[in-house]
Formats: sequence, C-alpha cells, structure tokens
Amino acid sequence: MTEKQTWSQRFESALHPAIAHFNASISFDIELIEYDITGSQAHAKMLAHTGIISHEEGEALFTGLEKVRQEYRHGEFQPGIDAEDVHFAVEKRLTEIVGDVGKKLHTARSRNDQVGTDTRLYLRDQIQQIREQLRDFQTVLLDIAEKNIETLIPGYTHLQRAQPVSLAHHLLAYFQMAQRDWERLEDVYSRVNISPLGCGALAGTTFPIDRHYTAKLLHFDHIYANSLDGVSDRDFAIEFLCAASIIMVHLSRLSEEVILWASEEFRFVTLKDSCATGSSIMPQKKNPDVPELVRGKTGRVFGHLQAMLVIMKGLPLAYNKDLQEDKEGIFDTVNTVKACLEAITILLQEGLEFRHQRLATAVTEDFSNATDVADYLAARGVPFREAYNIVGKVVKTSIAAGKLLKDLQLEEWQQIHPAFAVDIYEAISPRQVVAARNSYGGTGFNQVKQAIVNARTQLI
Amino acid sequence: MTEKQTWSQRFESALHPAIAHFNASISFDIELIEYDITGSQAHAKMLAHTGIISHEEGEALFTGLEKVRQEYRHGEFQPGIDAEDVHFAVEKRLTEIVGDVGKKLHTARSRNDQVGTDTRLYLRDQIQQIREQLRDFQTVLLDIAEKNIETLIPGYTHLQRAQPVSLAHHLLAYFQMAQRDWERLEDVYSRVNISPLGCGALAGTTFPIDRHYTAKLLHFDHIYANSLDGVSDRDFAIEFLCAASIIMVHLSRLSEEVILWASEEFRFVTLKDSCATGSSIMPQKKNPDVPELVRGKTGRVFGHLQAMLVIMKGLPLAYNKDLQEDKEGIFDTVNTVKACLEAITILLQEGLEFRHQRLATAVTEDFSNATDVADYLAARGVPFREAYNIVGKVVKTSIAAGKLLKDLQLEEWQQIHPAFAVDIYEAISPRQVVAARNSYGGTGFNQVKQAIVNARTQLI
Amino acid sequence: MTEKQTWSQRFESALHPAIAHFNASISFDIELIEYDITGSQAHAKMLAHTGIISHEEGEALFTGLEKVRQEYRHGEFQPGIDAEDVHFAVEKRLTEIVGDVGKKLHTARSRNDQVGTDTRLYLRDQIQQIREQLRDFQTVLLDIAEKNIETLIPGYTHLQRAQPVSLAHHLLAYFQMAQRDWERLEDVYSRVNISPLGCGALAGTTFPIDRHYTAKLLHFDHIYANSLDGVSDRDFAIEFLCAASIIMVHLSRLSEEVILWASEEFRFVTLKDSCATGSSIMPQKKNPDVPELVRGKTGRVFGHLQAMLVIMKGLPLAYNKDLQEDKEGIFDTVNTVKACLEAITILLQEGLEFRHQRLATAVTEDFSNATDVADYLAARGVPFREAYNIVGKVVKTSIAAGKLLKDLQLEEWQQIHPAFAVDIYEAISPRQVVAARNSYGGTGFNQVKQAIVNARTQLI
Amino acid sequence: MTEKQTWSQRFESALHPAIAHFNASISFDIELIEYDITGSQAHAKMLAHTGIISHEEGEALFTGLEKVRQEYRHGEFQPGIDAEDVHFAVEKRLTEIVGDVGKKLHTARSRNDQVGTDTRLYLRDQIQQIREQLRDFQTVLLDIAEKNIETLIPGYTHLQRAQPVSLAHHLLAYFQMAQRDWERLEDVYSRVNISPLGCGALAGTTFPIDRHYTAKLLHFDHIYANSLDGVSDRDFAIEFLCAASIIMVHLSRLSEEVILWASEEFRFVTLKDSCATGSSIMPQKKNPDVPELVRGKTGRVFGHLQAMLVIMKGLPLAYNKDLQEDKEGIFDTVNTVKACLEAITILLQEGLEFRHQRLATAVTEDFSNATDVADYLAARGVPFREAYNIVGKVVKTSIAAGKLLKDLQLEEWQQIHPAFAVDIYEAISPRQVVAARNSYGGTGFNQVKQAIVNARTQLI
Repeated sequence: MTEKQTWSQRFESALHPAIAHFNASISFDIELIEYDITGSQAHAKMLAHTGIISHEEGEALFTGLEKVRQEYRHGEFQPGIDAEDVHFAVEKRLTEIVGDVGKKLHTARSRNDQVGTDTRLYLRDQIQQIREQLRDFQTVLLDIAEKNIETLIPGYTHLQRAQPVSLAHHLLAYFQMAQRDWERLEDVYSRVNISPLGCGALAGTTFPIDRHYTAKLLHFDHIYANSLDGVSDRDFAIEFLCAASIIMVHLSRLSEEVILWASEEFRFVTLKDSCATGSSIMPQKKNPDVPELVRGKTGRVFGHLQAMLVIMKGLPLAYNKDLQEDKEGIFDTVNTVKACLEAITILLQEGLEFRHQRLATAVTEDFSNATDVADYLAARGVPFREAYNIVGKVVKTSIAAGKLLKDLQLEEWQQIHPAFAVDIYEAISPRQVVAARNSYGGTGFNQVKQAIVNARTQLI
Repeated sequence: MTEKQTWSQRFESALHPAIAHFNASISFDIELIEYDITGSQAHAKMLAHTGIISHEEGEALFTGLEKVRQEYRHGEFQPGIDAEDVHFAVEKRLTEIVGDVGKKLHTARSRNDQVGTDTRLYLRDQIQQIREQLRDFQTVLLDIAEKNIETLIPGYTHLQRAQPVSLAHHLLAYFQMAQRDWERLEDVYSRVNISPLGCGALAGTTFPIDRHYTAKLLHFDHIYANSLDGVSDRDFAIEFLCAASIIMVHLSRLSEEVILWASEEFRFVTLKDSCATGSSIMPQKKNPDVPELVRGKTGRVFGHLQAMLVIMKGLPLAYNKDLQEDKEGIFDTVNTVKACLEAITILLQEGLEFRHQRLATAVTEDFSNATDVADYLAARGVPFREAYNIVGKVVKTSIAAGKLLKDLQLEEWQQIHPAFAVDIYEAISPRQVVAARNSYGGTGFNQVKQAIVNARTQLI
Repeated sequence: MTEKQTWSQRFESALHPAIAHFNASISFDIELIEYDITGSQAHAKMLAHTGIISHEEGEALFTGLEKVRQEYRHGEFQPGIDAEDVHFAVEKRLTEIVGDVGKKLHTARSRNDQVGTDTRLYLRDQIQQIREQLRDFQTVLLDIAEKNIETLIPGYTHLQRAQPVSLAHHLLAYFQMAQRDWERLEDVYSRVNISPLGCGALAGTTFPIDRHYTAKLLHFDHIYANSLDGVSDRDFAIEFLCAASIIMVHLSRLSEEVILWASEEFRFVTLKDSCATGSSIMPQKKNPDVPELVRGKTGRVFGHLQAMLVIMKGLPLAYNKDLQEDKEGIFDTVNTVKACLEAITILLQEGLEFRHQRLATAVTEDFSNATDVADYLAARGVPFREAYNIVGKVVKTSIAAGKLLKDLQLEEWQQIHPAFAVDIYEAISPRQVVAARNSYGGTGFNQVKQAIVNARTQLI
Repeated sequence: MTEKQTWSQRFESALHPAIAHFNASISFDIELIEYDITGSQAHAKMLAHTGIISHEEGEALFTGLEKVRQEYRHGEFQPGIDAEDVHFAVEKRLTEIVGDVGKKLHTARSRNDQVGTDTRLYLRDQIQQIREQLRDFQTVLLDIAEKNIETLIPGYTHLQRAQPVSLAHHLLAYFQMAQRDWERLEDVYSRVNISPLGCGALAGTTFPIDRHYTAKLLHFDHIYANSLDGVSDRDFAIEFLCAASIIMVHLSRLSEEVILWASEEFRFVTLKDSCATGSSIMPQKKNPDVPELVRGKTGRVFGHLQAMLVIMKGLPLAYNKDLQEDKEGIFDTVNTVKACLEAITILLQEGLEFRHQRLATAVTEDFSNATDVADYLAARGVPFREAYNIVGKVVKTSIAAGKLLKDLQLEEWQQIHPAFAVDIYEAISPRQVVAARNSYGGTGFNQVKQAIVNARTQLI
C-alpha cells in the first residue's frame, strides 16, 4: 500500500499507464466507501482527543467527511478509475472541501491499518445481515414444519427409501444446520471485530495515539495486540469464507432435494410460477432455476475460500500487496450468500407446494416398514434373531405374491408365525412406523413436536 | 453403510471381489479402533442401564470389548483387508470372545450413528493434542522473544525494509496467530463434541434408549437434536479442516521467513546441523528442509479441505456412502498438522540461531530511519509538510554523497535546516527508531515487554 | 534433495530423529522403486557409453541393479523407514551387492534429475494403463448402447423430463466424454514423456554425458532443453491431475445418474447383488455403494489438483524441498482413478440391469411430445406461431380432461384444429418423437446407429 | 435455459422480482454480445441455405443482426438489467428492427446450443490473444537473455546458493515454461473449437439443419457428435482454467524471484519508477507492486478452476441451470491472465534493471565453486572419492582462515595436495564454473548460446 501524496513527488518518471491500471483497486473497493468514512471520522476524533491535532481541526475533518458521505449518497461524488483507490479518493475530496487541514487526516495512520479497519467494519456488518437472513430462513422452515408434523415423506439413505419420516422432522434437519451457521458466524464475528487501527504501516507509530478510543468509537470488541500481526492477518477473512462455504453446502443440499422433489419421478412438490420458469407447451415442466443456481453458486464460494488460502500461503510479514486481492472474493461471497439465502427463503415461502396426496401414497409403496414387523414379533417374545428370519420369510412371501406387506391376508401372516394378530396392520402403517421412533431427536411425532417448541425458543 | 451380518444372507450372489475391495475401508479406518471400542462400551452400558439387555449381558459386552482393546494393543488382534471395516472386525472378534451375546451389541444402533460417534471421539482427542502442541510452539516463541527484546531486525513491507523492529515483536506476531489458532480450535471443538449416538440409521430408534446417558459416559457436551442431521452432518469436519488450513497458513509464513533468513543474502539465522541437511563440500549451504516441507505440506491440507467441501456439496439427506470419504482427509490432516507443529517447534528450539552481529549491522544499512527525521523536525515545531520536504532534501544529499543518514556531518544537517542539533544522531539510531513506536501493540521496547508479560499470562 | 553419502560425514551433530522422520519419504516413494532401478540402469549404460566409467563398471552396475529389482520382487529386499528414501535405499543395496563401484552410479547425476526421471517413468506408465481402462469403459458403454438403440428413456433438462431419447444416445454421451479423456491424456503424456535426466542439481554437469542416449534407452520422446526448468517443472503433474479431475467429473455425473435411476422413484435400473449392498429385510433397498463412492472420491482428486497448484505457487527456481510433496497426491490420484474406472466398468457390465418395461412406460407419461404436435401442424402448412398457440390449447384441453395427449379422441383434436388426422397418434408416439430428431448428433435412430458405427471405429 | 417468448405467456403469475433478478445473467453475459450476434448470423444463413426459412428472411435476419452489432458498438444499444440475458436482448432488438421475421431466428435452435456456441467463440478468441501475449513475453525474455549470456547470477536450490549460472540460462527457464503454456493452449483450443450448434435443447432437432454448414461459417474445426454431450460438456472450460492456472504458477514463480531480487538483501535488480511505487522519504524502498499483485492474483485463478470443477461434479445430463455459473469464472480468468501477462511483460521490458556490479560480486562470495575443485583434481587423476575428501579439507582450511577459496595462497593449496597448480584459480573462477557445465541443457555458455538460437526459431 502506498502513500500517494508523497512518494509520487519524488519519483522522476510517472507510472506506466497499464501498470497504474493494473494496480488500481477503485473498481471494487468503492464498496468500502462508507466504512472508510466512518473509520476516518473515528480516527479524526482520536487525533483531536489526544491533542495530536486541535479540536477545531478534528471537528473540520469530521464534518468534512460527513459531507463526503452525503455527496456520495446523493450521487454527487463518484470516484472514477483515475482515483486509484477509494481511500485516496475520499481524502482528495475531503481536502477539496475542508482545505489543507484535510491532509492532516492521515497523521499517525497508514494505508495498511486504515484498509484493514475498513474491511473489518464492512465484514462485521455483512455478517450480521447474513445472520438475520439465516433467522428468516429458519423461521420459514419452522412455519412449514409446524404445519407438517403429521405429513409423512420417505426418508432416504443412499437415495434409497429407508423409512418414512415426518416432513417436519426432515425440514428441522435444515433448521439445525442453519442454527450452526448462525452460531458459527457469531464465533467468526468475534475474530473479525478486532481493531487494527493504530498498527501503522507495520510497527506502530511515534504519535501518542489512543487505540482504545478509536476501537470504542467504532464498537470493536478487541484490539490487535501486535502491530505486525494486525496489518498482515487475514484469518478472519478465511474463517468467514469457510463459514460461508458451509452455508452454501447446506443450501446446496436443500437445493438438490428440491430439484429431486420437483422431478416427474418424485413429484413431492409443485413449483409455483412465481419461482420457476417453464415452457408454454410442456406444462408440467417447471424448471427449478433457483435451486439449480444456488447449487451452482456453491462452486464460486468454495473457489473464493481456496483463493484466499492461496493468497496467504507463505507470505512473509508484514504487509504485501498480494493482500489487496482479499476484497473481491469477500465481496462476491457476501453478495452470493445473501442472494442465495434470499432466493431460497422466497422459494420455500412462496414457491413450493408439497403434494400431500402424493406423499401419503409414496410412504405406503415399499417395504420400508419391514423392520417394524421384527419389532412387533420381538415385543411378543420372539427372540430377535428368529424375528429377523421370520421377517425375511414374510417379505419373500409378499414379493412372490406381488403384494406389499399391508396387502397380505391375516392368514398369510399367521401361516408364517402364529404371533401375528390383526394389530399387525396398525403396527406397519407408516404413521405408526414414524410414531414409534420416539427416541430423543428421532422422527416420532412427540419428539418432533418438542423439537419445534425448542427451535421456536432458539429464534427468540 | 450396511449391516453385514444380515443382508448378505439374503443376497443370492456374492459381491464381486473388486467391488468388495473398492467398498472396504479397513485400510484406513483401523485408526478409529480404540474409539470404536470406547463408543461401543458406552452403548453396551446404556443398553443394560435402560433394560434393553440384561446387566449380565451388558457386563459381558463391556468386558469383551475391553479384551478386544487389549488384544489390539498387544498385536494379537490385527484386522486384515477381509474385515471390510473396523467396526465389523471389532464386532466379529467380540462375538468370538463372548459368544452370541456379542450380536446384541448392535441393538438400537446403526453403522451411521456408530461411525459418526467414533469419528467425533477421534477428532476431539486430536484437537486437544494439537492445542497442546500449539502451546509448546507458543512457549518456544515466547522464550526466544524474551531473550531478544532488544535484538533488532529489519521489518518489511513488500519485502522491502520499511523500519527496524524488535525481534521479539516479530516473533510475537506468530504467538498471536497461534493464539487465534488455539482459540479457534476451541470453537471447533464445541461443534465436534456433540453426540450422534442414538440417531440410528436416520430416524431414531423404537428402542427406549437414553442418548443423554451415552453422551455423559463419553463426555459429549451436547446431543444432536435431529437424527437426520446427526447422521449426515460433516460441518465439524469442514470446520476442523479450515482451522487446520489456517494453522498451515501461519506455519507456511514462518517457514517462508526462515527460508529467507537462512539464505546467503539475508544471513539472519544459522541452521544447526540437527535440523538441516547440507553438503560436505559446500559448508555454508544448509538446506532448510523442514520449513520447505512445511510450506509444501500446506497444499495437502488445503486440498483436504476442498475435498471435504466437494464431497458434501449437493448431497441429499440423510446418509450417503460418499461420506465414507471423510476419514482419510481428516486423518492425513491431523497427522500433517501434528508433524509440522512438532518439526517447526524443534526447529525454533534447537535448530535456529539468530546471527546477532549480522542483524545489528542490517538495521543500520538503509534509509528506514528517514521518517524519524521528519518526526524530529515536527517535534521542534516545523510544520509536518515542510518537515517532509526537508527530509526529502536530506536523503537526496546523502545519496549524492554516497552516505547513509548517520554518516552525514552535523554541518551537512544544519545546512539543510537549522533545527538539527547533535541529538539528531540519537534520534535516528535504530534503537531509538524502534523505541519511539511506543503506541499500543507497537514495536517500542516498553510495549514489547508488556506484550510478553501478557502473552505469558495467556499460556497459563 | 540431498546427497546423503557425503554431507552427513561433515555435519558434526546428527539429524534430530523427529526431523529425520519428518524429512523421510520412503513410506511413499517405495512406489517408484522399479522405475528408479530402470532409470539408474539407463544412466549406468550411458556412463559406460560415454567413457565416464569403464564398460566393466557399467556392466556391474546394470547387473547389480537388476539383482536389486529381483530381490525386491521376491520380497528379499524391503527398504524400511530408516532408509530415508527409496533412491538411497537402492544405492545402498546396490553397493552391498557390487561393492565400491556402486558408489559410481551417482556420478554426473543428482537427486533432482534422478527423482524427476523416476516420477515421469511412473506417470507415463500409469497414464497408459488409465487410457486402456478408458477403452474398456468405452467398450462396455458401446456394447450396452448397441443393444439399446430402440430403448427409450426420458431425456432431462433441469432434471425435468424434456423429451424422450434413445438409451443408446444417452450412453454415447459418456462414450464421447471418455473419448475426450483418452485424447486429453495423450496430450498430457506428450508433456510427461520428457527427460530431465542429465539436468543435474540445477545447472547441468561438467561430465561429458549424453542425455539423448539415456532418453532413447528410456523411450522419452523429448529432453528438457533447460536444466533449471528440468529440475523444477511440475506442469506435467498439474496437467495430469487436471485430466484426472475431468475423468472424475465424468464418472461422478454417470454415478449421479445411476443413483437416481436405482431409486424407488425412477426405477430405471435394477442393481444386481454382485455390485450392491442391501438389507435382508428391505429387499428393494439395494444401496448403490459403487456410484456413491465414486462420486465421493471425486473430491479427493480435485483436492490433489489444488494441493499441487498450491505447492508450486510462487516457488523460486530451481529445486525446493516442497517438491517432495508432489508424489503422494499423484499416487493417490492414479490409484483412485484406476479403482473408480474399474468399479464403474464392472458395475455397467455386470451390476446394472435396465428395466425395459418401466422405461417404456415412463416415456409415455408426460407432455414431452407436445413440441411434436406443433411440428405436425407446421408440416401441414400451419404457420409456426399459430401452431404453437394451437398446441397450447390442446395441452390445456388435455389437462382439463385429466388426459395425456395420446388419450385425446380424434374428435377432440379436430375440434381444436381441422388439420389433425388419425396419423397424429403416430406423430406423437415416443418412438416417432425420438426418430424425428434426425439432425447430426441427434437422438434419431439413424443418427444413433451411425454414431455407434463411428464410435466402434474409434476404439480400434 | 428458458424460451422466454413463449413460456411466460402461459404462466399465470409473474416471476417474483427478487427471483427474476437472481436468475438474470445480463450483468455479465453482455461480454458475449458480439459472439452471440456472429453465431446468430451463421445460424440465419444456415436456415436459409437449408430452406428452413426463405433467402429473403435469412438476409433480413443477417442484416438486422449486423445493425444490432453496430448499434452496440456505437453505444446506441445498451441492454439493461431488465433484459434478463444478452441473447434475449439481442433477439428483442432484432425483432424491433426487422419485424416479425426476427422471431424466426430461433427456429431449430435452443438457448442451450446457442449459449454453448457463444461461449466457445469467445474463448477461442481469447485463447489466441493470450497465446500472442505469451509470444510477447517470450520475446522480451529472449531479448534480455541475449544481452546477458555472460552475466552470472547465483543459482539456487532450497534458496541456498548452489552454483552460479548464466542469467540468460535462468531467464530461458521461464521461456520454456511459457513455451509449454503456448503449446498447452493449442491443445486446449482444439477441444474448445468444437461446435455444439444444432444440438438443440438436448436431443437435436426435427428440422433439416446443416450443422457442418454453420460450423464452417464459424470456423469450428469439429462438431459435437452427441447432442446430450454437446449441451452439457464443460470440459473445455475446466481445461482452459487449468492451463490458465499453470500460466499463473509460472508468473507467480517469476514474481517471487523479482520480489526477492528487488529486496535490499539480494539487490540483484533495480525497479524503475515507471513500474514500482515508493516512498518519498525512503528512496531505496520501491515496492514491487506488480509482481506482488500477480502472485496474489494466482489465487483467484486457482479458485475459478476449483469452482468450475465443483459446479460440474455429479450433474446429471443434460443441461442444468448450474451451468450458467460457468461464465463469470471464465471471464475473470481471461481478464486476469491477460492483465498479468501484460503487466509482467512491461515490467521485464521497462521496469527492471539488473545490477551487473552486484551480480558479479555475488557469485564470488561463497563456496559454490567447491565442486569444481573436486573436478579439477579428478581431471588430474585423483580418484573421485579422495578428491572429495581433499576438497573438504580445502574448505575447512579456508573457513578457518576466514577466506574464500579464491583467496587461498597457492602454497596453501599445495600443502593440501600437490596436484594443485596455478591454474586452479582459473578453474574455480565463477565464469569457468559456469562454462564447464556444458552438458545439453546446462548453463555452459555454448549451451546457452545454442539454446537462444533454438528459442528464437520457436518464436517464428
């Protein structure tokens, strides 16, 4: 990072235009402009507070910066490509507004700690926004779950039907994932919200600054304890990109399921026109664009994580220009995660209709209740191993007869084993199969009801 | 995951041998054997505690499992490739030892929650081992720092000398990185140490199990609240691999610096024979194999993180065989991080000697004290902007005369500006240049001393 | 890379045991042993050929190396962990066999060019093996395709049924992917098969070696033209890992399809017992372990590619110890790709049965033939736009009546437009819908037949 | 991909605005506009050529499309965010210009084959541009090499000085890397330059199109032989991203070296003001921003490669919306590689000055000529092993005396071994040490001269 005001004076020949363009970051770091202004305002206050500049000067800087902010918001100040970077652009505009005192803003500060501060202010803001979006996503999941405690849906392992489960139970799995995301981001936040302001270029400063004062003004929880570390640390960025990647893993899994559910073969959901694209002459064909795009966008977030790790690998202390490359990946990740969370939440809320009729049929079509026959026998005193062998026979009999278990006559059951009575039909009904998994965290209805109560509490 | 005991009976034709080999995991999951035994022991106790099996049966299983553990430790039990997976191997051996009751061990449990439990038991153990290694690493850094508070070393930005710093200050930057690693692993631990035991294959179980009981026996802090989530969650693995990647980032940065320092050009350190390889006829050439390998091994850890993300992307609920692929990456990452931390710690402790003479010279060879001339003038009432212009002149004069600042005569100084007095020499001495950065977190000696005291406290 | 024989003499203190272990590569580079012997034999021949050693010495070395090879093959020579690396182990054993002349083998050679040679010999061999496996995979695809030209299967976009296609056509898509893989590996091979032997440690050698001679003996197509490049180039490894990643992309796509096809919802294929695992009491549930594992293993190959890129990024010339880390990723990738290709080929050949009945029904269940109604009208002179509007009406009528197009009465057709005649039923039959896509590369049966002929030719 | 004109008519409710925005690609696919027009012109010609539309219609479409192109070039046609995607925008504008015939353009074509065609047209263009840039880069390397055949520079292994080499030889290593890049891109080109046009949505078309005709018009070398493969293949993108990643590996290695060379410790080069940023008061400190940024940007290209692999993993056939995510990564990679190649070429050409004085000194400062003492003795009949021991003694003597080898008196040499004569000084002079490595590809001056001649030939 360079101190433009000064070094360019000395250099005899100007920077090659292509190189100047190559070095410039204004095309993307404009995203930081308001955070830069906020950070500078705190710095100006501190300079006055510690007597490094006069109170009048501090006041002039603060007010001037506020004017820059307002000009930017009203589209009157639009830094262009010639501005090199947003920080330089703001300072230049400030000096135009307040005169020479503007040049005092950068006293006891370096680009290195300044940009580090801006980036953290930006990211902590975005993290909170994403956490709020996670809450919205969880709320919608919970709303749908509440209405579908007794809706059954096939549960899968290996994409093979393994056992029917409550649809609410299925959706609550995603609630839990989002809950971890929400908590994880809280941990990440705590390592983002640390102030590097005052670390200077690398070694601190000779001015009697007060880092705690700026940290307090900017609501930082902590302060970097080592200036070299403060200007060269990008752990917080990596950690955020990893947390974002995990969010995308979760959204991609849900997306995959929605895509499957919306297929002609599953037909578990109908996509509504507000959230799907289709074909005028193939009316059933509604393309699940949203979950497909979310699944696809997972790749770019993983890529940004990888990029940040690659940037940091083997970098000697302290600041290196490579670090300028941290921003675009962070920005795109923030924008991607926010867009995907919004789109998926809308999709769940307005774009998806579970086909209850089809689901009700689906859970009766297979042998996923066979385990419960064994349990039935075991409960009637048949040793478990023997019970299993009997179930094997029952199933073979059914298949040979081209029937499902529920379609076997009572005599057929009893021919195989006398312990079977008429209540076997109830025991193997999907509803009972689900209800019976009443272990903590299981799909039994009582468990699911309690899980919803607990989840609702977590949202408060 | 499959229940071998039973399904293979029904299947008419056996698995193709190449497919059996392809599916098998015994070659790597043997690493989990003791964790599997511990998990099974807790499960057996719970089965007896809840009356699912008798107390005698519970006792027989527990003791039998302990015997398997001892046989394994004494090399008497060595599961081979035919064993398919370690869990099956343990059960088989158990049943050989205790007889038919061994087959009751798997009651109310599935491979899915069993393996998930084993993996978490393994990983939380390894995380604590890594955290202890981080403490060792930090201790060594601190020991060296304490002895080198007043040792100066050039500080760099852009790999250009920017300003001398205390060597202790430089090393403390790595202390802080390791401190974050240590804290981050604590957060990861809290999301690893959650029990999936009792989630069953996907939906819980019909048995009256007590998940809190097993969790307590196994010292899990929490229990998965949703069975589908419990068997399909690998967030904890991704998060661990990310934390491990960040550790490797830090070690790779230190490695890069050691490699630079050991070069003929820097000559800041001497590598000792116990930690370097060399050439009999090129005595100065000692190859920094350790930091080079650490830097290289960074790649594989990043790769394992990516692999795990790729595995999870778009997987529908709940368990899929893809998840079997989580283990080798975790194991190799654990082994790599532990080996690298050990090697780097040994290198710092025994293999590296800072060349104090060379360092003392290095910090006097350049113009990195020029900023302090401006501060000197500013302190004597010269406006800052003017002071900068004056320094520009001083430096030009020096270069024209082929001198460094310290070599200018007092008259030369005073010709440029009358404010210069004989104390300018003290002001620009490297020691004073370092001392003057006395802002919080800066390299000033007082700051560094305090930082060491604080760091030492963190280690307790 | 170090020259152990000599440097250790000079070093006063021995390597720290943990460091020695950390540096050692014998645990994995044993995989190179026969390639190392082959490379050394060529080097020995060249030394004699150029007169650097005598012909007798050359003969002794060659024969001695052959003996080492035989001992290894017969399990009589098993280098252990103390051997440090396989190259040193071979040399040591050679010297035990042939006496002091063994020490002459390393004349005019360095570890750097030696290991580079070994790695390339290994990799080019493996590439050819993988290419042969691709041929087997293609052959099986073609065999199945040939039998299923007229088998129809739904074709999908967005996992929505878009239009029926020939199953042969679908399988031929994978044939084409494999064909590109086969060709791509040929390109990779050409950049692997270049000899670095004779590049020395970095700068060549003072001995009058003949690099063309060794290259010819070892069947290298080219020779590195620059010694610095020769010892530090790993492009060939990256390129191979990328080609392997693309193979895994293809296999993972096919795997995903097989998993879908084997689901209860699609029921397009039955998995046979020889290639699937299952449950004794849920007979329909056969877990598609093979395609799941293949899909999961895709992650590790991507990870190895990333790891290699990370290792190489920013490495200064020429050899750095980081490069030792290239091997495990290459080896694991080779083993993974070979195992996956084998498993998938077996699965296709023996483990998969297409359910023709179900497929025949599937393609009649939807409106994916609606476009053909428009074509029908257009062919009868109705302007295309008007035709589209008419089809819209037809579809709406059908849906309102709860019918598919094929179930509409002729009068119903004609009420909407008089151009419809009895041949409309033929026009919208799935078979005709497929046959009509007779553009080059399309699914029309004539196209598919020709495509099979062409594909068969490519395999010869 | 959707056919907007039609499907939206049927859908009763409109797309949710946030979803419409989420789905839109116009913000980035505008980059394809001219390629889209070119592709459509060829398609229009083919439609007329085959009689699918009339010649007048074909002419109208072609001319209308040319008008859209001109409007775009003159800024009169600027598709906005409401346009959804660039293809739709072009068609809409075309229809405004030519009237209803514009709607015929999309006959016998789908978005899937259309976008695939555009992307390939774009990429093959960019590949050729990058290949030309590689030629410029190679030319500059060669120009500098030619002037520096006899300039010596330390050669390194493990960043330890191993042996002096010709600076030309060092630069030619990068020439060779770039040569491989150039050749590799040629291979990639051959798999990019294949026409998917006419593959339709997935299965071909019922129209009597002529795919060879459009391929010829668009200068495609080949045609996709399978329509499913044609619309879903992204191998070419992965392969390009891999080739781009390897280019970045090479540029990052050179960048690392320039950063080292420009440091105060190496001082091998001076950065000129046109290509470096600096500090007004630290005149020596010129920040190597360009190589640092290039090194940093390596991460984003690796990330794009990873992202593309992740997108493709496990996607079922044929087109899925995930594929829309292929573009931004390709575009950013193209722009990054082009910008980096340009910046590095400018840096080499105008921004870097080798410090010959310093280099000449550097190669005399160490014991990297010790090996040549052994060769000297060996050439005088001393057995090699003995020679090595003698050199060990010579070096020890030197170190004990605080001398380099060149500073030993002749008597000192001869005391150690009588074979030493006055020509030893010549033998160990760096120039001779370099000259002696005269093996093919080595650093010997004759070799280097020949290598430059060969390289020059490759550029023609």
